[in-house]
Amino acid sequence: MFAQHIIAKKRDGEALAPSEIEAFVRGATDGSWADYQLSALLMAIYLRGMSADETVALTKAMMASGVVADLSSVAGVKVDKHSTGGVGDKISLPLAPMVAACGVPVPMISGRGLGHTGGTLDKLESIPGFRTDLSLDDYRRQVGRIGCALIGQTRELAPADRKLYALRDVTATVECLPLICASIMSKKLAEGIDALVLDVKFGRGAFMKTEADARALAQAMVGIGRSMGKGVRALLTAMDQPLGRNVGNALEVAEAIACLRDEGPEDVMEITYALGEHMLMLAGAAHEAKDARKQLEHAVVSGAALEKFGEIVAAQGGDVHVLEDPGRFPRARRQVALAAGREGVVTGVDAMGVALAALRLGAGRSRAEDTIDPAVGVSGLVKVGETVALGQALCEVHASDEAALAEAQVLLAKAIHIGDTPVRPPPLVAGIVD
Amino acid sequence: MFAQHIIAKKRDGEALAPSEIEAFVRGATDGSWADYQLSALLMAIYLRGMSADETVALTKAMMASGVVADLSSVAGVKVDKHSTGGVGDKISLPLAPMVAACGVPVPMISGRGLGHTGGTLDKLESIPGFRTDLSLDDYRRQVGRIGCALIGQTRELAPADRKLYALRDVTATVECLPLICASIMSKKLAEGIDALVLDVKFGRGAFMKTEADARALAQAMVGIGRSMGKGVRALLTAMDQPLGRNVGNALEVAEAIACLRDEGPEDVMEITYALGEHMLMLAGAAHEAKDARKQLEHAVVSGAALEKFGEIVAAQGGDVHVLEDPGRFPRARRQVALAAGREGVVTGVDAMGVALAALRLGAGRSRAEDTIDPAVGVSGLVKVGETVALGQALCEVHASDEAALAEAQVLLAKAIHIGDTPVRPPPLVAGIVD
Repeated sequence: MFAQHIIAKKRDGEALAPSEIEAFVRGATDGSWADYQLSALLMAIYLRGMSADETVALTKAMMASGVVADLSSVAGVKVDKHSTGGVGDKISLPLAPMVAACGVPVPMISGRGLGHTGGTLDKLESIPGFRTDLSLDDYRRQVGRIGCALIGQTRELAPADRKLYALRDVTATVECLPLICASIMSKKLAEGIDALVLDVKFGRGAFMKTEADARALAQAMVGIGRSMGKGVRALLTAMDQPLGRNVGNALEVAEAIACLRDEGPEDVMEITYALGEHMLMLAGAAHEAKDARKQLEHAVVSGAALEKFGEIVAAQGGDVHVLEDPGRFPRARRQVALAAGREGVVTGVDAMGVALAALRLGAGRSRAEDTIDPAVGVSGLVKVGETVALGQALCEVHASDEAALAEAQVLLAKAIHIGDTPVRPPPLVAGIVD
Repeated sequence: MFAQHIIAKKRDGEALAPSEIEAFVRGATDGSWADYQLSALLMAIYLRGMSADETVALTKAMMASGVVADLSSVAGVKVDKHSTGGVGDKISLPLAPMVAACGVPVPMISGRGLGHTGGTLDKLESIPGFRTDLSLDDYRRQVGRIGCALIGQTRELAPADRKLYALRDVTATVECLPLICASIMSKKLAEGIDALVLDVKFGRGAFMKTEADARALAQAMVGIGRSMGKGVRALLTAMDQPLGRNVGNALEVAEAIACLRDEGPEDVMEITYALGEHMLMLAGAAHEAKDARKQLEHAVVSGAALEKFGEIVAAQGGDVHVLEDPGRFPRARRQVALAAGREGVVTGVDAMGVALAALRLGAGRSRAEDTIDPAVGVSGLVKVGETVALGQALCEVHASDEAALAEAQVLLAKAIHIGDTPVRPPPLVAGIVD
């Protein structure tokens, strides 16, 4: 089976057979296809598309390109959550311990941030000592012992995805539905999960700009999960303004801890509960949303969820004292309030603008090899619909150097819109795909 | 100008600006684009196409990726011929000296054979001692001195084409009109010519299977030549049965020499004269075809064309005695006649079947690194429309090993069709594009 014959078939708009897709993925994994052949086929897939069956075959082959974690020794229905990425999206941090505190195992393998969206791993690593590079054995043991592990992608999981993703990034073949679906689902299914809740975001700060695009992506991923015998459900959620009030790694962990104390911002709490409800229902721990919600709220109010987060932090070598004393988080050299230039109502906080400001401050990566500064970012950000007085702080900017501070202030001032007419933000959860 | 932005633009069906096409070609030449980026753009071009303006920009950039030979020191309008490739296509060999003998300089840089079509260089190198690896300086001096040089592609000419062609071959992006046009025209225009006659073949033994496809290719190439200020004309010629009666390197040179003695097969003579007429007219050496034809016939009948060929052979180190004594050509170990299994009329000689037989005998290359055997091939092949008696030789097979001989005989027997109803082959020259 020559690479060029498989490329030619997709180029001509034909569906590839599972054996052909497997040859492609094997070629990416063992190097038997040259990079230029992989990228030619990626472009042909981008332009000719893939059927649902082809996408399932691609997902399976990518999942099988490495180790598939075996969590059969862990009792219960293992459920994870995946977000397509947003600004200020720290939902995994309160969600995983809340669900685990309800007795549902949460094996969660996350990525790092790239571009305008942050990564769960980067956030966790702002906790002094926190290690995300556990082996798959340690991961399995920790999920068995305390019901949750929050680790990073290991080299053994879906190596074909790592190879193909790196190529897609430099060959203009990233924004392609079947490739996106297979990339996400192959990695998640390699974790050894039984069920998955997807948070598919849309809006200015999301990868998908419209609800329709988000729905198409959600439907494709739910379909893949189903063909592979997994319970998968997707929530379509709005991402026009950042989630919560803090953007930046340590600042977001502090906000997540506030959520676990039942003191989190309303929007973060709402989405965390919504996703948690579906995780509990998919795990069979609740029959309806109302019941699931009650369990989750109890886990928060009783302190069980915060305690579970403490167990996770301790198990992964982190300083558990951050849970009580936010002063232990790294702190940026400068904290400067951004004052409102007028009074009025906040009519918009452009998530992309805030993300670019955070990126400029050093909270994210423009390129994979950039290092991030855990301390910098934005806190106390106003939300759409709030009224502000002249000179009131719209947010606090945490910066480590003056040039970045000045540029971030300009970006933030542009991102926060103040008007006269009261507005209500659109609903956070726009729909459910299952 | 990032590679991925240029790739994305073509991916989305937009026309590339000349500066973007230049960046791509520069990337191919100096390695500043990775191979996987080049191949992603090649696939996007394959699927999205290129406008006439883009194709001209690509041709110019590829031509300018290396040296453009400067033949301004050679007096006269320099005219070359290019064929898109056929079976038994030795036309360049009699044509170049015939036109040069009429006083029109013919600077001809040719390629090697690959796949089912032979290459002029391989044919010439079956003349003992003949060197095709002249430097561009020697090439220019020889064209100035004797009016013709027949050399091989040097590394200095259109290096971007060499790079891109190698990638296209292994990424299923060969059969793409703008890429084919730019590849051919960039190399030909780098020769330093003023005008060009194209022999665009169609049929079972040609790259283009239909006259319509051949016409589209011809129109695109003529358009490119015109935009670059060169006189370009294309003949659309049939390639269903092999040209002439001999297929194989030394055997074709022998047949070419017969043409120069006015003893060549009718079809080879007809196409050679037709192409020569247009070369003379483009060079301004004749105003109409009839006049050009007279000059060309005189060059043959007077012996001037054969003499010119002898000058070329001598100038390039070849054994001129082959012109008088075909016994000096390398000779295969076995000569075996293929006998007709029935009497009747030859209704078809499948050029592709004959080409595969010649390839199996060792006359061509399946892969670029294969070596060829100059002596092997087929001679005395019957032509469509001829009557044959039972047991009469349909051709002579020249082989160097028994296994190849046996396989070639089977292939040839399948390729030569004998029926009862007299047939006339279609006209050789189906049309002219200018």
